[in-house]
Amino acid sequence: MDPHLVTALNGPLLELEKNVVEATPSIERWFRLEWQDHTPPFYCSVDLRNAGFKLAPVDTNLFPGGFNNLSAEMVPLAVQATMAAIEKYCPDAKNLLLVPENHTRNTYYLQNLARLIKLMRMAGLNVRLGSISEEITGPTELSLPDGSVHVIEPLIRINNGRRVGLPDFNPCTILLNNDLSSGSPAILNEVYEQSLLPPLHAGWTIRRKSNHFAAYDDVVRRFAKLIGVDPWIINPFFNHCSEINFAAREGEECLAANVNSVLVKIRRKYREYGIKEKPFVIVKADAGTYGMGIMTVTDASEITGLNRKQRNKMSVVKEGLEVSDVIIQEGVHSFERVDNAVAEPVVYMIDRYVVGGFYRVHDQRSEIENLNAPGAHFVPLAFSHPHALPDKAAEPGTAVPNRFYMYGVVARLALLAASIELERTDPEMAAI
Amino acid sequence: MDPHLVTALNGPLLELEKNVVEATPSIERWFRLEWQDHTPPFYCSVDLRNAGFKLAPVDTNLFPGGFNNLSAEMVPLAVQATMAAIEKYCPDAKNLLLVPENHTRNTYYLQNLARLIKLMRMAGLNVRLGSISEEITGPTELSLPDGSVHVIEPLIRINNGRRVGLPDFNPCTILLNNDLSSGSPAILNEVYEQSLLPPLHAGWTIRRKSNHFAAYDDVVRRFAKLIGVDPWIINPFFNHCSEINFAAREGEECLAANVNSVLVKIRRKYREYGIKEKPFVIVKADAGTYGMGIMTVTDASEITGLNRKQRNKMSVVKEGLEVSDVIIQEGVHSFERVDNAVAEPVVYMIDRYVVGGFYRVHDQRSEIENLNAPGAHFVPLAFSHPHALPDKAAEPGTAVPNRFYMYGVVARLALLAASIELERTDPEMAAI
Repeated sequence: MDPHLVTALNGPLLELEKNVVEATPSIERWFRLEWQDHTPPFYCSVDLRNAGFKLAPVDTNLFPGGFNNLSAEMVPLAVQATMAAIEKYCPDAKNLLLVPENHTRNTYYLQNLARLIKLMRMAGLNVRLGSISEEITGPTELSLPDGSVHVIEPLIRINNGRRVGLPDFNPCTILLNNDLSSGSPAILNEVYEQSLLPPLHAGWTIRRKSNHFAAYDDVVRRFAKLIGVDPWIINPFFNHCSEINFAAREGEECLAANVNSVLVKIRRKYREYGIKEKPFVIVKADAGTYGMGIMTVTDASEITGLNRKQRNKMSVVKEGLEVSDVIIQEGVHSFERVDNAVAEPVVYMIDRYVVGGFYRVHDQRSEIENLNAPGAHFVPLAFSHPHALPDKAAEPGTAVPNRFYMYGVVARLALLAASIELERTDPEMAAI
Repeated sequence: MDPHLVTALNGPLLELEKNVVEATPSIERWFRLEWQDHTPPFYCSVDLRNAGFKLAPVDTNLFPGGFNNLSAEMVPLAVQATMAAIEKYCPDAKNLLLVPENHTRNTYYLQNLARLIKLMRMAGLNVRLGSISEEITGPTELSLPDGSVHVIEPLIRINNGRRVGLPDFNPCTILLNNDLSSGSPAILNEVYEQSLLPPLHAGWTIRRKSNHFAAYDDVVRRFAKLIGVDPWIINPFFNHCSEINFAAREGEECLAANVNSVLVKIRRKYREYGIKEKPFVIVKADAGTYGMGIMTVTDASEITGLNRKQRNKMSVVKEGLEVSDVIIQEGVHSFERVDNAVAEPVVYMIDRYVVGGFYRVHDQRSEIENLNAPGAHFVPLAFSHPHALPDKAAEPGTAVPNRFYMYGVVARLALLAASIELERTDPEMAAI
């Protein structure tokens, strides 16, 4: 089952794969040295788009759900990576408090939760669930799809308010699997004695995609020099507009101008590489997730011509978070196919390690559209393939492990960018 | 393909599996704390024997070959563990010098070498091969079974003799895959600036199995208390005799007395648990490997009745190393079967992580004999099984992942014992 090789790689991407596979030891050493200076987020998933001539991350999620979509073969890898992560934060940790999303009635999300609890348990932690949802006012039973029953209860402050925990449960680590789209709750403020992972400023009320891709720019510039490729091959152009109000039609000039400037840059690159595809950009909320507030645009005139329905769709994202900052990102075609439907690879990492991935597949969407939408399904990526090692001898573009390795490398560049982004946006660092 | 479940577990081992699976978080935390105090060997393989009522390590190899026998699915796990190990010794390492066994004409060994080179390369290291064999006097081409061609050359001292390397190759780490049965070569003495892994005193001219099992006694005593089981369930009795000369029939009294005392202790335990099997002991060289110099004994009288051929067989092991120290170890039946042949699990670890394993299978041997002998073949253990996580809800003794987890735990106890053994026997520590 290797659906992804349906996509033929061409020109620049073939070259990239060749360079990446050839340079494996230097690449791994480069990452090792980077991780001396930067701490990876606890976990992370990265959406990639493979256009055949270009491979780029388009979204980096610091509160990944969907661990249930990874193949079961990858579980030992995830456990091992979790052990490495925990050892860094709390080597003598016994207890981990997991804070899930508020919508705990979604079966898929509960499957994710069950998988996460098992991973943490295997890594040597007692896991309990703490909620920041207003609906959870006391201990509430939660039956998970794997048959296990857990109790979820409201977070409380313990140890004279110095720490966060549950009654009779004093965790060393608080792991957020809630992206804080509904705001950062007061109870999580001023947590100094415990590891709060990821930190509050990774939540979508504070985080901005444009900060992430600015950090990614810097990471890619250095990486591209290391292996000798054009950074554009793995990096989408982007611009950014603030003070947008879609409903009130404010900021349209900024948007239109930036859409145009990104399109001009893409056209120039397409000419350079002789690419015949039609350039497009993705306009999306600079904060927020869940595939909401996303638009595919092929011409700046589309921005000024938005109808009311389209404007409404763009103006709010998950949990009613209002959109005022917008990122205009080079669109990357997704020419990968699973059973003839458009597919994009999603790579999962824990600590600095790739622990699996899957294809997000959508048979109602085209190769220039966002696939993170209702109707998508998931096909595990065979990262632990029988021939999981890159093969230097293979013809570029023909070997599964080589392509997966390249996916893992690009996803880790986004991971590194996330860690640099979080350093740069850390409010406590700014205060010093 | 789950051949191992042919062995029904009974009484004490069912109890062990139950306790181990139940206590997963405490066990993993316990190991995590142990690894704060002790550094695991770079790599290690452990031979286990499963008697249904008892599960015990019988040999702990610090220079494991046979990496080629691990399933390809386990490769990413091994790479990840290698990264963790390297980071500890040489975070900015570029170069690793691998010192293979001297018998580089054995195809199976060359497959092992090819696998090791790939693992190291994937972990971000340039690998070159250095030899301590007298037969390698200059750069010699070595064609590996995977089609790659490497050059093996004699080790030299570089940097004014302060370091070990090759011409134009200055490694940070020197990884021995040569157990030094033929002695510790002078060129490896006084290596202070580089990581020599494992250290010279892990080589068979210095190492003693009895030191290992003494350390294992201590580890198991503490672990058994943690999970509330009789330590004997995972620990074979042993005694030790020195100044043995099989050829000259010296030391036979010591041997016979100790064989008897171990048999008496086993009988007592068998009575306690109502075990009907016939007790036996394994008499083997206290130093050395390769399944040489090993004897199964069921009565002390067999020792004094050895004929010349048997005495000759016991008196030397690999590379002609003479046997003067002998360990008398409780025999553990191997009631596991693969295709009706006796099988024993071998678990591989890199750093502190289980990275795979296989069954060593021998259809010409009985369940009370050593299986590490010509004619053995290997069946990968499905450590990365579709349901690789232990399942608390499963009926004890019925679930593959639960049994594999138990194997991994016991193997890691032996790994921990090895690290304590190496601390205790470190000549530099003794000098302080």
